[in-house]
Amino acid sequence: MTYCAGILLNEGVIFASDSRTHAGVDNFAKFCKMTVFERAGDRFIVMLSSGNLAGTQAVIGILKQRGDAGDGSPSVWTARTMFDVAITVSNAMRDVDHRDGAYLAESDLTFNASFILGGQINGEPMRLFRLYAEGNFIEAGLDTPYLQTGETKYGKPILDRVVTPATSPADAIKCVMVSFDSTLRSNLSVGMPIDLLCYKKDSLQVTMRRRFEESDPYFVELCDAWGEGIRTVFRQLPELQW
Amino acid sequence: MTYCAGILLNEGVIFASDSRTHAGVDNFAKFCKMTVFERAGDRFIVMLSSGNLAGTQAVIGILKQRGDAGDGSPSVWTARTMFDVAITVSNAMRDVDHRDGAYLAESDLTFNASFILGGQINGEPMRLFRLYAEGNFIEAGLDTPYLQTGETKYGKPILDRVVTPATSPADAIKCVMVSFDSTLRSNLSVGMPIDLLCYKKDSLQVTMRRRFEESDPYFVELCDAWGEGIRTVFRQLPELQW
Repeated sequence: MTYCAGILLNEGVIFASDSRTHAGVDNFAKFCKMTVFERAGDRFIVMLSSGNLAGTQAVIGILKQRGDAGDGSPSVWTARTMFDVAITVSNAMRDVDHRDGAYLAESDLTFNASFILGGQINGEPMRLFRLYAEGNFIEAGLDTPYLQTGETKYGKPILDRVVTPATSPADAIKCVMVSFDSTLRSNLSVGMPIDLLCYKKDSLQVTMRRRFEESDPYFVELCDAWGEGIRTVFRQLPELQW
Repeated sequence: MTYCAGILLNEGVIFASDSRTHAGVDNFAKFCKMTVFERAGDRFIVMLSSGNLAGTQAVIGILKQRGDAGDGSPSVWTARTMFDVAITVSNAMRDVDHRDGAYLAESDLTFNASFILGGQINGEPMRLFRLYAEGNFIEAGLDTPYLQTGETKYGKPILDRVVTPATSPADAIKCVMVSFDSTLRSNLSVGMPIDLLCYKKDSLQVTMRRRFEESDPYFVELCDAWGEGIRTVFRQLPELQW
């Protein structure tokens, strides 16, 4: 399993992903699921991967190779808008599915890669998408400013209660880290480290990216403060009178 | 979908269930999913139902009819221990599956009823079980004092953070109501009213049972206080320094 989340704010976009991959409890490993395509001043694009690792790596590999071709053919570097970037990723996904699908089907498997994709191209607004394994996609908006993939349920209530487009990046970061804490506690197939990236609107480059390892002092402090805080809120909640 | 939860505390057992049944978003209804078998001073047994309504009602119907027979044959009224009650329920589930299973299979359906079962028989400890559709079951214990069925994920983090066997019934009630609030917000197929029952250890009768309708003043107050409280905790959490 995996847990990835992207939040589209008025002031920027937050991306976070866990790092655990597994094919059974006796076969798990650590892989970074966050990929950045950055050309400072021109475009800043982030992809968060979930699903079968061979599938997601193949898609990323194709996107990089096509981008490196440098012959002006369609790629993440030549796309005019973030919508066109989403189409480019979708095409790569379908190419991988076309190549691998029939072979996976022989083992009753399917191509199941999916992605959160977001960022900004110079002169365009920030945008955030979720691409499904079929290559179709949805876009975050004012009513639903965040998108998740993987093990989404444990960490969703806290996002629902806190996040709006007007939320500050600092608060959204706290919220997404608490959302990860709830998910990590409940699903062993989601694991540290957490990769976190905060893109600031119109910066067109990354200034804030950080990896949180198991014993990261900030993450430990945050989770302790959160746990203690909600137990305090609990004590103050009104008791039911029968 | 459904959401049901049972919590085994040192001082008693808490039971809660939602009331929505649905076979598609255009076909939903309200049914109480909480069934009580009570003989004051002798035994107090609660069942929370989830799964296909025809299946759960059939099981409850059989348990009631067999109990009414009054000829001393095995029933919820003659079982010596809560473990034997669980066996009695399991047998009824398998009988329904035996009768209906082949017909359901013709429509690619399966018998999918499952139950949370708990209570106390005079002279015995309080016990809490979760019965799977196959009729096998697990029992709550010191390490995991609560059991859920249905849409379990949204409401689980808060139970994990608050509930231990030593939690007071008053706090556990607050917790389970917040757990329901989180679930109701995230899954439309879980719906009000909520049936809540608090069994007090060795009372062998019900004194605290209440139904919370949509606009119940206590539930509204609790949810508002909780939402406001966690937003306050949020504001006080340490900010990440980059």
